[in-house]
This record gives sequence, structure tokens and C-alpha cells, in this order.
Amino acid sequence: MATKGDETRQGILAKAFELATVGGLSGLTIGRLAEHTGLSKSGLFAHFGSKEALEVAVVEEAGRQFVHDVLVPALGKPRGEPRIMALLDNWLAWGKRPGGCFFVAASAELDDRPGPARDALARANKDWLDELATAARIAQSEGHFRPDTDPHQFAFEAYSIMLGSHFFYRFVRDPAAIERTRKAFAALLAGMRVKRR
Amino acid sequence: MATKGDETRQGILAKAFELATVGGLSGLTIGRLAEHTGLSKSGLFAHFGSKEALEVAVVEEAGRQFVHDVLVPALGKPRGEPRIMALLDNWLAWGKRPGGCFFVAASAELDDRPGPARDALARANKDWLDELATAARIAQSEGHFRPDTDPHQFAFEAYSIMLGSHFFYRFVRDPAAIERTRKAFAALLAGMRVKRR
Repeated sequence: MATKGDETRQGILAKAFELATVGGLSGLTIGRLAEHTGLSKSGLFAHFGSKEALEVAVVEEAGRQFVHDVLVPALGKPRGEPRIMALLDNWLAWGKRPGGCFFVAASAELDDRPGPARDALARANKDWLDELATAARIAQSEGHFRPDTDPHQFAFEAYSIMLGSHFFYRFVRDPAAIERTRKAFAALLAGMRVKRR
Repeated sequence: MATKGDETRQGILAKAFELATVGGLSGLTIGRLAEHTGLSKSGLFAHFGSKEALEVAVVEEAGRQFVHDVLVPALGKPRGEPRIMALLDNWLAWGKRPGGCFFVAASAELDDRPGPARDALARANKDWLDELATAARIAQSEGHFRPDTDPHQFAFEAYSIMLGSHFFYRFVRDPAAIERTRKAFAALLAGMRVKRR
């Protein structure tokens, strides 16, 4: 059962994740978090110990929310291509939240900053890439994807398209970005699919 | 004819671009540039006026080098798919320089920093996307790409793959990143190509 302390920690993390999504991990300080939660800085230090431990906790919270919003609803869909379509749709919706995709932004931010936060982010990214590859493998076993396709190549290409989506939506500010993302996903699936005669 | 002042400026810019590729635009200060060129800070201020103007000049220098290294050699290849293959190969080689692709790194860095440097970067990115779309349009007129393919969609997907390449090579540190990039480019071209019977 969740204790009162767990609930408090969970509430703080949800707020910290929200702040980090909009202002980046480096903009997330114990001081700013104190302002936004109404808790004391010393109380927050008692919860997290350090700015670095707070960053790790926020990355893990992002992973938890991603699983909840993107992965879990898709697991309720039929195995194979319907599930993959749901994964891609939910992922696209995740990337359209204010501040964009937390993981894309954090990866750019932590790229040259080795340490526990980068390690936590790399783990979360790998988990997601493995989920994508697993979904592609299931689509093969269901006879939707051709047996000669490579599940990890699928994960690479799907991830690339989402990075492109983020870049065109946020940096280039291309009004067609979301439409182009959907077309790119459709082309990727078409290339994986068993050809009907 | 280039004057002595032009040559000095060109030499400074080449060094500034090199520093920015490895340490980011924000790590490029007039002070650091003075150390690496042996010129005085006041002399550098005389050349560029401000840190912001230096950043704009570096982005433009990056664009000049990109055109020289990636675009120009490809324009010597036959129109259509051979030229596109050369563009993609040269682009991949550009991204493997120390520090990775300057444009990918700078776009992440300047995403939330409006101003003249971000504007210059957006112009350089748009120029390149237009070049990619033009190359795809030529491949259509040469009968290599199907007439119903969308040249801007080609540019979007090629750019997405390069972003994926950068992410998997530098962040995930996937040893297969370059191989996956090549396969993704091959799949993109296969999807655009006129089907032979």
C-alpha cells in the first residue's frame, strides 16, 4: 500500500516532470520546485538528496508516465499491426504535449553530460526501443510483417521519424509536420507488410 | 579579389566553426576564440561586434562548408538517383566528423533561444531541405522516382533518418547506427523508385 510519504513524493515528481518538460532538466532546480510545490527547500532535499538524484527521479517519472500513456493502452489492442498503429498514435500524441517530447529534449540536453541522469535516460530509451522491436516481432508472428524484416531496423526507423517530427514541428515550425509524420509511418508499415497478391 | 581582411576573417571563422562543432555554440566565447587564434579579444570584437554576431557568422560558415563538402561534389554526379546517393553519402560522412553534425547539435541548442543565430540556422536548414526536394524532383523528371511521390516528403524522411543516425550513434551509442542509417536510406529510395516489371 502507498504510504503518505510515497504520495507526497509522487505529487512532487509529477510537478517536477511538468517543469522539466517545459524548461528542460537543467532549468529544474530545487529552488524552483520549492516555489511550485509550496514545500521548503530543506524538505525537498530530504526527499531527493541532490539536484542530480532529483534529475534521475524525474527521468524515471517520465518513463512511468510514458508507459502509462503510450504503452499500456496499446497493449489492449490486438497483437500485430493494430497494436503497432496504437503505439505510434499514442507516441505522436505524447510528443504534442506542451514542451514536446521530454525524451527527445532531454537526450539533446544530456548528450554531452555523462552521469546518472544520462544513464537513466539511456535506459528509458533502450526500454522503448526494445518495446518497439518486440511489437514488430509480434507483427511478424501474426503474419502482418514479412519474416525477412528486421524488428530492430523497424525500431530505428520509427524512432527516426519521431525525431524528424519533433524537429519539423518545433524547430522548422512546418505546419505539415504531423501530416508528414503520419505519411512516413504509413510508408514504414507498407515496407514491412506481407505483400497480398 | 579577397583582401587581407577577408582572409583573416575566413581563418577566424574556420577556427570558430571547429570550436562550435565540438563544444556547442554556447561554449564559443570571444575569449576562447582569442586563445585559439592568438588574436586579441578587442581585435575579435572589431571583426564581429558581438557574441551574437559571431554566432550568426559561424552558422553561415557551417552552411558554406556544408555546401562545399556535401552539395558541390554531388552536383558533379549524373542527375537523378546517382546524385541523390552521392548527397546522402556525403551527408553521412559530414555527420561523422568529430562532434557530429553541427546543424543537428545547434538546432537542439537554439531550439528555445529565439534570435538572429536561430534564424540563420533555420535558413540553412530550409536551404538544405529545398536542395533535397529539388534532387527528388530531378529524380522524378529523370524517370527514377515515381511521379506520384512527394519531393518534400522525401526531404522530411531523409532528414528524419539523419536525425535518427545522429541519435543512435551519439546518444544510444549503437555500434550498428551507420549500418542502420544506410539500410533506412535504401528503404526510402526503394519506396520512391519506379517499379520495373
